[in-house]
Amino acid sequence: MPYVNIKITNEDVTKEQKLALIKGATQLLVDVLGKNPATTVVVIDEVETDNWGIGGECVTQLRKQK
Amino acid sequence: MPYVNIKITNEDVTKEQKLALIKGATQLLVDVLGKNPATTVVVIDEVETDNWGIGGECVTQLRKQK
Amino acid sequence: MPYVNIKITNEDVTKEQKLALIKGATQLLVDVLGKNPATTVVVIDEVETDNWGIGGECVTQLRKQK
Amino acid sequence: MPYVNIKITNEDVTKEQKLALIKGATQLLVDVLGKNPATTVVVIDEVETDNWGIGGECVTQLRKQK
Amino acid sequence: MPYVNIKITNEDVTKEQKLALIKGATQLLVDVLGKNPATTVVVIDEVETDNWGIGGECVTQLRKQK
Amino acid sequence: MPYVNIKITNEDVTKEQKLALIKGATQLLVDVLGKNPATTVVVIDEVETDNWGIGGECVTQLRKQK
Repeated sequence: MPYVNIKITNEDVTKEQKLALIKGATQLLVDVLGKNPATTVVVIDEVETDNWGIGGECVTQLRKQK
Repeated sequence: MPYVNIKITNEDVTKEQKLALIKGATQLLVDVLGKNPATTVVVIDEVETDNWGIGGECVTQLRKQK
Repeated sequence: MPYVNIKITNEDVTKEQKLALIKGATQLLVDVLGKNPATTVVVIDEVETDNWGIGGECVTQLRKQK
Repeated sequence: MPYVNIKITNEDVTKEQKLALIKGATQLLVDVLGKNPATTVVVIDEVETDNWGIGGECVTQLRKQK
Repeated sequence: MPYVNIKITNEDVTKEQKLALIKGATQLLVDVLGKNPATTVVVIDEVETDNWGIGGECVTQLRKQK
Repeated sequence: MPYVNIKITNEDVTKEQKLALIKGATQLLVDVLGKNPATTVVVIDEVETDNWGIGGECVTQLRKQK
């Protein structure tokens, strides 16, 4: 029954990577808490880099500085 | 003042269906708790089927299996 | 598969009222979008009135003014 | 370490306005609670006006009435 | 920079189990997407069983039926 | 109409500090986007330090190391 929400920046994440996140998060809940995978929900939010801030800067800027 | 967030998969939900969700959720808070509809907020998130997992599978796959 | 999150202030909501919110929100998703109730999740968050603000005031204050 | 999520309607918000929200929210946590800005995260969600309801109406309708 | 929110029912989860969830979710983001663990945030919400519904029933009831 | 959610660790935040967060976040939305403060909602979540992880450690541990 757990619900896991993963928020990441929208930077070319593939379908395979998303599936790996879904499988990994579901397995984590099974392994640590014995939860039923059939009712474990994982939702991935991909956030534009203009809309994600850390340290008072947006990620779009931070990526350019690198 | 309540805040309701409805997360559903992005699968051709119409404007009329969204409005029905907004009206229904608002009325539910009025009926059950006597909340003021004028300040009841409903936000609907439509999530891509690649980004929604249940049972360790993503919904895109589950839809194909049917 | 939908996920509904209802945030309300923590003001003596009874177990029966919470169940009515759960049943009502689940039925709404069935009625409007034909979702499967068995995998429809509803989570209610009760927020302290000191922690909920509207119009730049916290609800604790607003309740006293009435 | 704080996490701030700002949900607004998707109505032509500029990159500069988003950055001002990120900077302002980060500074607020520094000023009020002495939090470390380097690990303060701000995520802005822009929600379609069809998907945002208040008072049992969606914002798309409310904007037309004005 | 990812943000992971894990919502589970409040049923005697230990400090060690919570730490295992935090470590596991952080490692998942490192393994799948190469994210920096130093800025990966995990927040666990423990929700009362009266406040969690699935299939139109609250978990408190479901636990009793077993 | 904006909705702001501020998640912080539960570490003796006072009622006055919470009110300052509510007022500051509301004013930010007024200043940057011209939003109506009367319908701007701010919800503060205080999360136990055992339940907040960063860098694969929980905040309870990080506080002890300092």
